[in-house]
Amino acid sequence: MNEQQPPRLRLKRGEERRLRSGHLWIYSNEVDTDKTPLKELVPGAEVVVEDHRGKPLGRAYANPRSLICARLFSRNAEQGLSSSLLKKRLEQAISFREQLFPGQCYRAVFGEADGLPGLVVDRYRDIFLVQAGTAGIEQVQEQVAHILHTQYDARAVIARNESSVRELEGLPHYTRALVGDMPAELSLVENGVEYLAPLSTGQKTDWFYDHRAARRRLGPLVNEKRVLDVFAYCGAWGVLAATQGASEVVCLDSSEMALEYVHRNAQANGVGEKVQTLHADAFAGMKELIGAGERFDVVIVDPPAFIKRKKDIKNGIAGYHAINELALRLVAPGGVLISASCSMHLSSEQLLDVVRSSARHVDRFVQAFASEGQAEDHPLHPAIAETGYLKSWFVRVLMNY
Amino acid sequence: MNEQQPPRLRLKRGEERRLRSGHLWIYSNEVDTDKTPLKELVPGAEVVVEDHRGKPLGRAYANPRSLICARLFSRNAEQGLSSSLLKKRLEQAISFREQLFPGQCYRAVFGEADGLPGLVVDRYRDIFLVQAGTAGIEQVQEQVAHILHTQYDARAVIARNESSVRELEGLPHYTRALVGDMPAELSLVENGVEYLAPLSTGQKTDWFYDHRAARRRLGPLVNEKRVLDVFAYCGAWGVLAATQGASEVVCLDSSEMALEYVHRNAQANGVGEKVQTLHADAFAGMKELIGAGERFDVVIVDPPAFIKRKKDIKNGIAGYHAINELALRLVAPGGVLISASCSMHLSSEQLLDVVRSSARHVDRFVQAFASEGQAEDHPLHPAIAETGYLKSWFVRVLMNY
Repeated sequence: MNEQQPPRLRLKRGEERRLRSGHLWIYSNEVDTDKTPLKELVPGAEVVVEDHRGKPLGRAYANPRSLICARLFSRNAEQGLSSSLLKKRLEQAISFREQLFPGQCYRAVFGEADGLPGLVVDRYRDIFLVQAGTAGIEQVQEQVAHILHTQYDARAVIARNESSVRELEGLPHYTRALVGDMPAELSLVENGVEYLAPLSTGQKTDWFYDHRAARRRLGPLVNEKRVLDVFAYCGAWGVLAATQGASEVVCLDSSEMALEYVHRNAQANGVGEKVQTLHADAFAGMKELIGAGERFDVVIVDPPAFIKRKKDIKNGIAGYHAINELALRLVAPGGVLISASCSMHLSSEQLLDVVRSSARHVDRFVQAFASEGQAEDHPLHPAIAETGYLKSWFVRVLMNY
Repeated sequence: MNEQQPPRLRLKRGEERRLRSGHLWIYSNEVDTDKTPLKELVPGAEVVVEDHRGKPLGRAYANPRSLICARLFSRNAEQGLSSSLLKKRLEQAISFREQLFPGQCYRAVFGEADGLPGLVVDRYRDIFLVQAGTAGIEQVQEQVAHILHTQYDARAVIARNESSVRELEGLPHYTRALVGDMPAELSLVENGVEYLAPLSTGQKTDWFYDHRAARRRLGPLVNEKRVLDVFAYCGAWGVLAATQGASEVVCLDSSEMALEYVHRNAQANGVGEKVQTLHADAFAGMKELIGAGERFDVVIVDPPAFIKRKKDIKNGIAGYHAINELALRLVAPGGVLISASCSMHLSSEQLLDVVRSSARHVDRFVQAFASEGQAEDHPLHPAIAETGYLKSWFVRVLMNY
């Protein structure tokens, strides 16, 4: 840790407004580069951010390579990104998860919303996966790993640095153990169900804790019902449905490896006989089921992001339409569609509108009886829209009135 | 029931679009009054709605006095608002509530979203409160009462026709028994807690089932915590918190009668010793608590609508700011604020923004870890924005980072 005063980053007149509203990001075009040139900063360097008059606004770490050239981690300009600050922020974040979720399985840190911009930590009991999304966090990830090891009994801390956002910061992709050994798979509990999931390679997330709150709503909907789980992955929705009393569950996924995990997870939870798998592309598989005259009381459609960037919005919405129309046709009258999207660029209202117009198109009437966002371990930073991305609608599907 | 073909209501060119998108309302300026004069219609009369070419779009009931001059109840122009249709729609609505909510206490019918525009029915076991919001429903409320009596064992069906929307339809205000006798109070179960509430007079709603889903989230937040319930009414939030393990609950309300019910409800659920009441105006009472240095781990602010009409938006938002600032000051560091609004004209995003800026103003940092809408028995009609009005945010309150 540097006890010297770090370099300053002076904002242009008026550009402190977003920070004052609670936001944490500084864009490069907001910096008075005549007074404080960005180029001279090392990626990840700490800076004191100040307004155009030189009044300090807080402490940030910078990255001159990135459009978001600095992220505030404290409104106290004297406060460095010290080990004690990291410890305090981790404790602040983890204590809340511990209050809410028994079993030590959760997203332990969710970046900006936990006051640690760019840091994501997922916990699987004594295994922690750390994602550094910024150069500033990359510099302290060993310290984070050390705290997790010494304060939270981490057996393994894995740097899962595969996210595409790292490219914007000029950071390479890699996965390696910071503490302990790399596990082959992950074991976790969610909503009372035990799951195994592979430690995946590449950019795919390992487990999606973010849907835990939405999945919690399955119970009263699936009892003695026939359930279809599209984009099932390892069976997070489907196996839970089976344990909650579903009479039969079909998990559809294009990955054979994922479906092997579905079977293992179903068996481990004593519902192996109720859970079937269908190995197919989601669109093709759903068309096949429609063709075969299959109907389900509950259909869950939880696709990957169809809209990754703003320019994908039009095509992405068309994709959501297509998948929701197929899903609606598979719901028995009076049944339920659970339609999710993790596309940040598709709002909750827009997703409901996709479901509405898809329903009109296939001559159904829907009642939207619940919606859910990210689970409690993925809180929103209320000034940073980008911290919100996940939404799901629960709609009852009736023949047209 | 009229077996004759009812009068037609012809729309102007292009004005069928909203109906085709799923909406159910027709505004008077969309009608081709040269071809089908509105004036000749009796309030509540059934009409066949047709597009500008005369193609039938469905069956509606009309009210020439109202800006919304007709509401579609079926897309089948041959389908009258018969007793068998009412029976079918009621069955469709109630069967879903029965699946979700044990104990026969729920909003049984929620108007447009249940295919019965203007009809609201709240169930308290064998007592049903019916609200007719349109002349069309007013004409069939006796039939509705009869069905509830014969099919759902209603001991009493009360016409609770006090809503201000009735004025727009030219309907008078009254409360009277359609079946059985008027009860003095209502008994209900919600989230496992037994409550009593008065059958209130005037426009006040009797019980707010709409927050049931939000209240369901209290459990893990209140265990061994000190809780403040502002605008407590009969203690829906506060008494539940006490039964879920809160160490102490203060219910604040300006109505002495409501606070008597708080005490009765707390005692009936075995938590009388944990629940205190504070009789005061919400703003004054919160200021008093702040002045006395009181802090709470969980503060619930569930006010009446501060924005009743569009013209109230500015003042209403100022009111939400004021109440949320007071509430944030009463939350102990690391504690939780639950902030609700039932103003249709304040979106969920706007409420979060109120909380965000209120937090900045009192120098707090908030993490929005959950939000909730109306409970499942108040579904949204996805084409009718007016069916959505309730939102609540659950935020963790930290000292500023």
